[in-house]
Amino acid sequence: MMDKGKKAKLDDEEGSELDTELVMAIEKLQEVQDELERVNEEASDKVLEVEQKYNEIRRPVYNKRNDIIRSIPDFWLTAFLSHPVLSDLLTDEDQKVFKYLDSLDVEDFKDVKSGYSINFIFSSNPYFEDTKLTKVFRFSDEGTTSVSGTQPRWKDGMDLTNGVIQDKEGHKRSHVEDSFFKWFYDTQQKEAMDSLQDEFAEVIKDDLWPNPLKYFNNEQDEDEYEDDVEE
Amino acid sequence: MMDKGKKAKLDDEEGSELDTELVMAIEKLQEVQDELERVNEEASDKVLEVEQKYNEIRRPVYNKRNDIIRSIPDFWLTAFLSHPVLSDLLTDEDQKVFKYLDSLDVEDFKDVKSGYSINFIFSSNPYFEDTKLTKVFRFSDEGTTSVSGTQPRWKDGMDLTNGVIQDKEGHKRSHVEDSFFKWFYDTQQKEAMDSLQDEFAEVIKDDLWPNPLKYFNNEQDEDEYEDDVEE
Ligand SMILES: [Ca+2]
Ligand SMILES: [Ca+2]
Ligand SMILES: [Mg+2]
Ligand SMILES: [Mg+2]
Repeated sequence: MMDKGKKAKLDDEEGSELDTELVMAIEKLQEVQDELERVNEEASDKVLEVEQKYNEIRRPVYNKRNDIIRSIPDFWLTAFLSHPVLSDLLTDEDQKVFKYLDSLDVEDFKDVKSGYSINFIFSSNPYFEDTKLTKVFRFSDEGTTSVSGTQPRWKDGMDLTNGVIQDKEGHKRSHVEDSFFKWFYDTQQKEAMDSLQDEFAEVIKDDLWPNPLKYFNNEQDEDEYEDDVEE
Repeated sequence: MMDKGKKAKLDDEEGSELDTELVMAIEKLQEVQDELERVNEEASDKVLEVEQKYNEIRRPVYNKRNDIIRSIPDFWLTAFLSHPVLSDLLTDEDQKVFKYLDSLDVEDFKDVKSGYSINFIFSSNPYFEDTKLTKVFRFSDEGTTSVSGTQPRWKDGMDLTNGVIQDKEGHKRSHVEDSFFKWFYDTQQKEAMDSLQDEFAEVIKDDLWPNPLKYFNNEQDEDEYEDDVEE
């Protein structure tokens, strides 16, 4: 690399020398930006390491919690119905299916940053063959999100997502509300919203999952209030 | 604590025993939620420690960057005018004041989580007495944000924020556009938006400050394009 004096001699005029100094300053500035980017990447990696570590610490606690929840009748159904956003998701028919919900689980991918899955585990039930319905969100390095989910394998006449269901006597009834179970494989809306997150998924992951007892208890409080009024 | 058998004997009826079991399950669930909360707080603390550490690593790099930027004429003015959001902030008069801008600095509070400040450092100038105009955002533990800022001490007839300014001949001219310098102490809008962040502050902190060269260079590219067209 030439020293500054030599460079100045090569320049014909004052303006050209200023230009050279400006170009060199911008080059130095670019080097500093590159340095900042390396520092930022290292910081992000360290934050991810912390999040990975604490996800591992939380995992057995969540498993213990799922065991306790399993002993509380209709825990998730009650929590959903008490939640200001999630309550709208469940039709009357969906609520009957939730009687067979064994557990709910939200899991970050191991590296945290590349995605997460929401899993609904069911006991064997009259509605579908599956014991696990999953919705998975995958984040690419480019910042896009791709979504996939389980399309339930409905038993004969039990498909809640086709707008028609048979009652006990075998008569078909039409129902207008959209079933929650469509949410698992309905990724159309998602693509239209581009990189926007699926709202229900975010609520389940960031609000319900961290503290479902809060919503379960809200419902309890409401019942107490209603009892008081009736007495 | 009583064992389960003893407790059952004390209960008169099946329903009451179930209630007791339910209450105990909910208590156990609350204990698990408390445990999760402790883990989450520890995780947040560790993430903050990482962010604090890397803020300290970045500080001398930002100082070095400010030194380089100082050697590039109208760097911040050019970056602002090339930015899709910030370009709208500066009136023609504001741009003249920016000729005296020595440096810009964005600093998190030392603990990162309780706030940040945006500082504009000016050389002595014909407009105001201050050499530093600051806007400070303070976050409370309760999730609220309070904002404070410098009201510039304008020199006689130079107040760009009162809608009237004297020209060189001493004639008063009215100007309609809102001056950028109002932003420093105009916290009215902020209060109305409640806990919403100040948009300009967020853009400066999270977009301009991490890489101002990107915007400075955009402007350069545009000029090159314009030159090509003119030739
Ligand atoms: Ca109720
Ligand atoms: Ca231009
Ligand atoms: Mg259950
Ligand atoms: Mg300057």
